[in-house]
Amino acid sequence: MDWNAQFAAWQNTVEAALQQYADRWPAYGDLQAAMAYSLLSGGKRIRPVITLAVCRLFGGEEEQALPLACGLEMVHTYSLIHDDLPCMDDDDFRRGRPTNHIVYGEAMATLAGDALLTAAFETLTAASLPAPDLVRAVRCLSRAAGPAGMVGGQVLDLLGEGKTLSEEAITDVQRLKTGCMIQAAARLGAIAAGSTPEQEEAAADYARHLGLAFQIRDDLLDVLGDEATFGKPIGSDAANEKSTFITLLGVDACQRKVEELTERAVACLAPYAGRDFLCTLARNLAVRKK
Amino acid sequence: MDWNAQFAAWQNTVEAALQQYADRWPAYGDLQAAMAYSLLSGGKRIRPVITLAVCRLFGGEEEQALPLACGLEMVHTYSLIHDDLPCMDDDDFRRGRPTNHIVYGEAMATLAGDALLTAAFETLTAASLPAPDLVRAVRCLSRAAGPAGMVGGQVLDLLGEGKTLSEEAITDVQRLKTGCMIQAAARLGAIAAGSTPEQEEAAADYARHLGLAFQIRDDLLDVLGDEATFGKPIGSDAANEKSTFITLLGVDACQRKVEELTERAVACLAPYAGRDFLCTLARNLAVRKK
Repeated sequence: MDWNAQFAAWQNTVEAALQQYADRWPAYGDLQAAMAYSLLSGGKRIRPVITLAVCRLFGGEEEQALPLACGLEMVHTYSLIHDDLPCMDDDDFRRGRPTNHIVYGEAMATLAGDALLTAAFETLTAASLPAPDLVRAVRCLSRAAGPAGMVGGQVLDLLGEGKTLSEEAITDVQRLKTGCMIQAAARLGAIAAGSTPEQEEAAADYARHLGLAFQIRDDLLDVLGDEATFGKPIGSDAANEKSTFITLLGVDACQRKVEELTERAVACLAPYAGRDFLCTLARNLAVRKK
Repeated sequence: MDWNAQFAAWQNTVEAALQQYADRWPAYGDLQAAMAYSLLSGGKRIRPVITLAVCRLFGGEEEQALPLACGLEMVHTYSLIHDDLPCMDDDDFRRGRPTNHIVYGEAMATLAGDALLTAAFETLTAASLPAPDLVRAVRCLSRAAGPAGMVGGQVLDLLGEGKTLSEEAITDVQRLKTGCMIQAAARLGAIAAGSTPEQEEAAADYARHLGLAFQIRDDLLDVLGDEATFGKPIGSDAANEKSTFITLLGVDACQRKVEELTERAVACLAPYAGRDFLCTLARNLAVRKK
């Protein structure tokens, strides 16, 4: 299978599995609809695809990794819903559609996010894995998403608004805000495959470099991108007076940094045969338009 | 040890353990402070005490149940923070102190709640229990707190504002909104003790009746209570036009219902020696003033 076909196949696998989870949630008021609206809103599924690809790289089966991939995507989705709330980034559009609170109101959007975050952990426990690996997966995801991970990064991001941050400080924010979850995606794939600690760390290092490259590319698209393609408003970082890699280093240096980090990500997988899919993924993300 | 001394001892054990968890969270901006503000705000610790007491009833050790009790209390705390937000119940006071968003702002309160919910699951995985029991604990808590449990109940509660609900509908709301978490408290204690399924169900049945009695008592205190003792504004249900057991059945019938449910809770533990603490707990909660 060529790369595009494999990526699309895994996207479809994730999409179908998420749909099944959503169908099983109870329909109390708009809760299920609000959860499904954001969960099934055409996300790129990069994180769950990384989980499935890392699992295969280390010899695991797709169905072992799928509940972990889906749980991770639920956490990612909740973070977008809460991030868009009026008291946070106050965004009206996401992926070209009105944000959750615009459609369902703030109370329901808050609760839909809470429910997705909570359901994610039940979802993890449904994987057909030895109990110690399920515990490892729960610990991995809760650390990556919690106060020492993604939520910590969101706090640093809010604090940084209107301030000039150093390259080190911005790297810290991004490492926590988006990096931890992308690393968790890779680690969950390794856990699903019953990998060695060495394999898990190699996958996590790959994801660490890829995650930073991904974020810098995101900042570049916020400046250079096309709103219709990107799916969210262009120039929102400048409007929110956010320090980004672009405001600090400029466009050209950022493009070089993305390429450099991508090649470092690729290098982390050098010992492993079957790394092609993940290497191409990193290189494609480095030139993505959306 | 008499009942009061035992209750106070377990409260102190929980308090000290929660303080230790809070000390270990990283200090990104006000995040740690905001999490600790609500987590360590003088809650009654009824849920975690139930976990510890049920664990002892079935022959388990306190330290096996403590991380589960603390994780559950983190989830309970997050739900109060989000429930108080302006877009939800919009409450300025809780336990006699300003609510989280009044002190730290809405964005930080939202994130502190998210972080507590996420950290709860990492906390569960730290218990010294066989991995299959840790998985059981994660599944139990995520089900109780998720869309088919507490969050579902919060949605039904919001939908019920300004409407006249039947006794059955109010019972449903309360079963989900507060009952599921009180049941989870009992189940986690049983899980920590490595109990039989029969024991776990008996503890859950006890908690189901106690939980409903607890909620009706709460509604009674909202009408009859003393604001300074109760710690939150009196009459808020009426102000929010909420259907409660009181609006439906009146004060006298509700007091009888509390007594009846309490005795049914007590009866569930009849087969078990060492049930005295939990029986007295149920009877004390039935006449509580705050």
